Amino acid sequence: MTGIKIDGLSKKFRKKNVLDNISVEFKPNKIYGLLGRNGAGKSTLLNIIANRLYADQGTLTLDDENLVENDSALGKLYLMNDVDMYNKSMRLDKIFEYTEQFYGSFDYEYAEKLAERFKIDTHQKFGKFSTGYHTIAKLIIALCVPADYIFLDEPVLGLDANHRTIFYEELMTTYSERPRTFVVATHLIGEITNILEHVMIVSESKITLDEDVEDILAKSHLIVGPQAETKDYVEGLNIVGKESLGNLQGYYVYGDLNDDKILPDTVQIERVDLQKMFIYLTNQGGENGVNK
Amino acid sequence: MTGIKIDGLSKKFRKKNVLDNISVEFKPNKIYGLLGRNGAGKSTLLNIIANRLYADQGTLTLDDENLVENDSALGKLYLMNDVDMYNKSMRLDKIFEYTEQFYGSFDYEYAEKLAERFKIDTHQKFGKFSTGYHTIAKLIIALCVPADYIFLDEPVLGLDANHRTIFYEELMTTYSERPRTFVVATHLIGEITNILEHVMIVSESKITLDEDVEDILAKSHLIVGPQAETKDYVEGLNIVGKESLGNLQGYYVYGDLNDDKILPDTVQIERVDLQKMFIYLTNQGGENGVNK
Repeated sequence: MTGIKIDGLSKKFRKKNVLDNISVEFKPNKIYGLLGRNGAGKSTLLNIIANRLYADQGTLTLDDENLVENDSALGKLYLMNDVDMYNKSMRLDKIFEYTEQFYGSFDYEYAEKLAERFKIDTHQKFGKFSTGYHTIAKLIIALCVPADYIFLDEPVLGLDANHRTIFYEELMTTYSERPRTFVVATHLIGEITNILEHVMIVSESKITLDEDVEDILAKSHLIVGPQAETKDYVEGLNIVGKESLGNLQGYYVYGDLNDDKILPDTVQIERVDLQKMFIYLTNQGGENGVNK
Repeated sequence: MTGIKIDGLSKKFRKKNVLDNISVEFKPNKIYGLLGRNGAGKSTLLNIIANRLYADQGTLTLDDENLVENDSALGKLYLMNDVDMYNKSMRLDKIFEYTEQFYGSFDYEYAEKLAERFKIDTHQKFGKFSTGYHTIAKLIIALCVPADYIFLDEPVLGLDANHRTIFYEELMTTYSERPRTFVVATHLIGEITNILEHVMIVSESKITLDEDVEDILAKSHLIVGPQAETKDYVEGLNIVGKESLGNLQGYYVYGDLNDDKILPDTVQIERVDLQKMFIYLTNQGGENGVNK
């Protein structure tokens, strides 16, 4: 079990790089966060992994088997995203059966439990659900397929606060009961921070961060103090964000601190709120308007 | 200018009440928040106001004119929601022109400025946008139509943190430059709290709260203290939420406090975080699975 390996992946749309020579791995039984601005290329990457789009260049393997146009490998992964694969007039419980046919099994018992928690009517036609319940319907399928790699592109789109909490709880529960890999792409970074074990950030067609959360934590610093002294101390460091509070200035630094410089008494190094760090790291760099 | 008046509105789907005898008003030049759980009936209410659905009972007027099947009244309002009114192969800038034809004018200058801020390509076909940019495209149209009543159903669906901030800023700017009514239905309550002037909460097919934000603030209390004394003090009050911190218990109370009871020295009444109050008030009551 070597996981999913992506090597040298590139994709252009209308002569514009959407993914530029990307190499990443998704290992078995780990929860990944795939973060990035709108239009950074996250959804394109996920669509290529799931064979809904094809790369211009690069190789994709799952447990060393080629992942492109290979049904046995594709049966090990599932992508939930904004593209509806299902007939709008099909009932949700019929979609469960349809999914079972492709994946060989389906956890009906868990699906029923989830339907009760989310209070969704599984006899309803797929096309009849509101935005939030549409997402819930797709989430239930994603959590009940037997696949080892589950990719969730915006899993809380349109969900209210209560439903988002239910999803995060169920994700943790099902992961501990049946470990598998989840890759979660979301814009509600703060809410998911505690769940993630590894974070990848996509920015301007590249992977700009690919680290375990504990390593990210070790590299994250918040330097706080009076404006002049603090600015002087952080000069030359990798500043990813700053905030001020009255006369105090706080700099978010990612990476090594300057061991040669002496920290003034008035300046302090504080523990960083990981959620804020992710938001700063994600917001670095630019964006572009077109996607998919 | 008396605004939009809705009186005795009811709507059933498959014999189930989705809206049950609702009466509300939207006054000119005010920013409303329309809050509620998934499936509470918010989208149905907005669809009925915009004549995309018809009520079983009730009357709707805009400045005392009947709002049902009345083009001159309908030209004064705009609804942005998850239903795409536009041909997927139409370019965004062509949709601007199409919108101008219906509404008589369109603020092209502002649309261009917004497109630059959001970095969206207006020459792109509508169907080619990713989830986030799809929302951005619709937001730009909503902010540039000349209508006096703009209804935004989930205006930040799929937007990253940066884009959400841009939207909130632009909403405040355009509102102050050209006052009109905005009705915002959103599940990211915390982010919008500072912008709202009036809040309506839909729960179980009814309007359960319809108040100006300053009145809500006056009625909101957080009672904190040791478990036993605090519980005793809040007994009989309208408790909408509770939280604990170590040995301390906090009760969120909405409405009058008990003037007859003496507040123990160990118990304190604190100012409530409005965002938390909205979340508690919104999460009261049940939900149901089917919508639209």
